[in-house]
Amino acid sequence: MHGKPPSDFARLRRHHERGAYDTATIHAILDAALWCHVGHVAQGRPVVLPTFHWRQGERVYWHASAANRLAKAAAEAPETCLTVSLLDGWVLARTPFNHSANYRSVVCFGRPVVVTDEDEKRESLRLFFEKLYPGRWEQCRPPTRQEMKATAVLWLPLTEASAKIRTGGPHDDDADLAWPVWAGVLPVRFGAGAPLPEERLPPDLAPPATPL
Amino acid sequence: MHGKPPSDFARLRRHHERGAYDTATIHAILDAALWCHVGHVAQGRPVVLPTFHWRQGERVYWHASAANRLAKAAAEAPETCLTVSLLDGWVLARTPFNHSANYRSVVCFGRPVVVTDEDEKRESLRLFFEKLYPGRWEQCRPPTRQEMKATAVLWLPLTEASAKIRTGGPHDDDADLAWPVWAGVLPVRFGAGAPLPEERLPPDLAPPATPL
Repeated sequence: MHGKPPSDFARLRRHHERGAYDTATIHAILDAALWCHVGHVAQGRPVVLPTFHWRQGERVYWHASAANRLAKAAAEAPETCLTVSLLDGWVLARTPFNHSANYRSVVCFGRPVVVTDEDEKRESLRLFFEKLYPGRWEQCRPPTRQEMKATAVLWLPLTEASAKIRTGGPHDDDADLAWPVWAGVLPVRFGAGAPLPEERLPPDLAPPATPL
Repeated sequence: MHGKPPSDFARLRRHHERGAYDTATIHAILDAALWCHVGHVAQGRPVVLPTFHWRQGERVYWHASAANRLAKAAAEAPETCLTVSLLDGWVLARTPFNHSANYRSVVCFGRPVVVTDEDEKRESLRLFFEKLYPGRWEQCRPPTRQEMKATAVLWLPLTEASAKIRTGGPHDDDADLAWPVWAGVLPVRFGAGAPLPEERLPPDLAPPATPL
């Protein structure tokens, strides 16, 4: 385990040997993950919605339509949980119970800040683009003020965050090793398909790399 | 849009034209998704944790260590949200604002039921295995009573669920079509790597197919 829990609430309960609280680990997982799940409480009930995130220093950012639940929740019920998870492989053991998965995950708790300054919001969205499509922001038609208004940008400080990582093969008891079933890891990862150009696109424009 | 919202709470707020509330769509997305994010409320704060799920008829199941937060929350603060999301592609437009993603997601609300009957729990875990590795449950060393006790199985009825789907290319304004930047879809999907056998495995055992 690396680092110490930033709070009792953020302390890992299960498999704490897989936990990490250090900045480098948390940053690396947030940067590798391409989308996240944001949880908030509405009418006393949990609501978990997928969206896209990016990191700027010690903050994790996400964006939402200014009219949607994610943006409204920040004002009405600020406590938020942003979670990312990356599946790296299926871990197959000789017993159902010892099956597992290799993964990297980060859980961040806190109260989000809504970015209201227009220049700050624009720069933040540019950095979001840089994560997915380096150099593309400058190639696009710049956003209008109305488009900027319709987009909400929020961030959480990474002060109450934890990471959890599992790697390696299955852990079977010695007594089970002779059981005649395949055991090991089936790795998975995201792959890119062939780009599909928009139908009215001139043929001389090349696609950017797929974010993976 | 297919079907009607099962409750106002479960009604989609944004892009409701992407919404679906019919059983067939919700089942198909839950079955295609390999892991989920489960949200609950602890000490008034949202907690979102990744885990694995499967479906049995009109119920979505997940499992947890009997000692972890997911299982305890079901008793202490039962309101739960289980969300799955599948990323299908990046949608690139001529403006930052019109960029989007193709995806399929399902959000389920409700109060989970904890499976206490041992036979029912065992059969449910067998069906979880059938989703990931057809036929494998019977090949493994059967679970002991102690292993079964350490595993919690929970389910939610699919009575308050919604689906959201985006497909197709970018929607740019006609005035932006001449902007000299690539536009279209960059498809993504999960891919399998080469299986990594556990080091003590006899060489005559073949790996199963990777769940994708």
